[in-house]
Amino acid sequence: MASYVERLHQAIQKKKTPALVGLDPRWDQIPAEIQNSADASGGTCGEIQAKAYEEFCLRIIDVVAPLVPAVKPQSAFFEACGPAGVIALRNVIQAARQAGLLVVCDAKRGDIGSTAQAYAAAYLAGEDPKSAPFGADCLTVNPYMGVDTLQPFVDRAKEVEAGLYVLVRTSNPGAGDFQDRETDSTKLFENVADRVEALSQEMANGNDYSSIGAVIGATYPKELDELRKRMPHVPLLVPGYGSQGGTSADVAGAFDQNGLGAIVNSSRGIIFGFQKGKLAEEFGEEKWEAGVEAATRLMIEDLAANTPAGNL
Amino acid sequence: MASYVERLHQAIQKKKTPALVGLDPRWDQIPAEIQNSADASGGTCGEIQAKAYEEFCLRIIDVVAPLVPAVKPQSAFFEACGPAGVIALRNVIQAARQAGLLVVCDAKRGDIGSTAQAYAAAYLAGEDPKSAPFGADCLTVNPYMGVDTLQPFVDRAKEVEAGLYVLVRTSNPGAGDFQDRETDSTKLFENVADRVEALSQEMANGNDYSSIGAVIGATYPKELDELRKRMPHVPLLVPGYGSQGGTSADVAGAFDQNGLGAIVNSSRGIIFGFQKGKLAEEFGEEKWEAGVEAATRLMIEDLAANTPAGNL
Repeated sequence: MASYVERLHQAIQKKKTPALVGLDPRWDQIPAEIQNSADASGGTCGEIQAKAYEEFCLRIIDVVAPLVPAVKPQSAFFEACGPAGVIALRNVIQAARQAGLLVVCDAKRGDIGSTAQAYAAAYLAGEDPKSAPFGADCLTVNPYMGVDTLQPFVDRAKEVEAGLYVLVRTSNPGAGDFQDRETDSTKLFENVADRVEALSQEMANGNDYSSIGAVIGATYPKELDELRKRMPHVPLLVPGYGSQGGTSADVAGAFDQNGLGAIVNSSRGIIFGFQKGKLAEEFGEEKWEAGVEAATRLMIEDLAANTPAGNL
Repeated sequence: MASYVERLHQAIQKKKTPALVGLDPRWDQIPAEIQNSADASGGTCGEIQAKAYEEFCLRIIDVVAPLVPAVKPQSAFFEACGPAGVIALRNVIQAARQAGLLVVCDAKRGDIGSTAQAYAAAYLAGEDPKSAPFGADCLTVNPYMGVDTLQPFVDRAKEVEAGLYVLVRTSNPGAGDFQDRETDSTKLFENVADRVEALSQEMANGNDYSSIGAVIGATYPKELDELRKRMPHVPLLVPGYGSQGGTSADVAGAFDQNGLGAIVNSSRGIIFGFQKGKLAEEFGEEKWEAGVEAATRLMIEDLAANTPAGNL
């Protein structure tokens, strides 16, 4: 058995990139061939969309599995299809794991005591995907309710060798509304960071990193640099690269000198990369899978050229 | 069409109680007759548990529908069964609505932009349960990521006449870790409260209350009293009564003088009430549904005797 962060770092070193592909399917952007095939199979609108999302994501997994260490399905888009979408989410997670990818389920769960235990049991499987119904390696969680509400997730992560990314500094424009509130020269997000570092340091047990990570948006590079130093044992998940405006220079501070300690997510920029700019001209919808591969390779090259990921 | 808060207040006045029954099924507490029947139908462990949860909740709905205005299924326990549990959750929500109950789906979702839109579209249906896959009247949401991440939920609530309860002051022991952080004499939860009041006041459009509500735990009665005054347009959802230690005296401050403006949740104390104390002696598992009814009636009487709900 290896811990989440050990498996993650092995995968990063094997693929020589910290690029994370976000699986955020949206009906109006799915290639027409997949829409038509799902439509032809019939069912409710939610069932048809779920079928299309599953096929789209499975074909993306085939493309990216040789290239990147991990994928991050966004639960919201699957839940929006109703129960059929949740079945598709489970199938996508299982397919990604069978393809040798690590899976971070982006569901941003959080609740008290035994309710948090139930969420942790639903999603966190660690190395054996069959040890939880949704079978992910890792889950994003929300800290607002307090450290006691993170503990059941931490306990489960320890038990099954799974991982967590706790929301610390998010990538959205209004991230600072509450996260930036300041007391005694510490902002709320810094206080959350300190508590997550404490949980992570304890779990690291002498190693460089533990499996208790944090989400820090690429859209706030100064905070990202500071938080990397503030949370030395915490692996980072950095959203906001690409479509949200973050660049490779913005995320460079997330890594240690070996290029470890962080994964950088791109969702729309990869999975719908064939719909914009030069990739649209070169590939378009007809060769959309080649467009997804090209977008992935561009991201990998960009991170290698402009961040410590080049040292991998 | 009537807004969520109008429908809620009509239902509270019709049933003459603000008691909210939380549907938090747990396998090891489900009556053996239901466990056995689910076991006999076969399937995976998750499928069997989901089947039992659905039957248990549907029978509770039959018992409580004539007595209370609303129920609050806890999504985590259903998700812990995997996709089969999510189908059961959808069926429980639909059955509750068919029985004339309002449904608050307790899923504590929260994310940025279009992802928040997807969650809102998944759960918030308003008066027409078919207008969203899960078809709830109302959803609990987490504010940590900022006001811009609440806006898609607010927009959807306006569009379909649904409701929200934003986490402000939760009921768990560690609630204060981040929520109590203070700046300029305002604590974080007070700052969140002010932002929720602003959203709610705008939506109230001259009425006493809007459909943008807040979660405030019964386990912090002083804060509850203060927040009621601080958020005059905000309907409250008060967890923590009963099993978590909150009393009717603790929740009295949540109401206006007419007994409106709040609903008080009890989960384990109602649905597993037949397993403890006098109700266990009088009813036990053999007459568990009568025990659920008795526990519900005791809560209704307690709230009527010791809070402004007696004025309904």
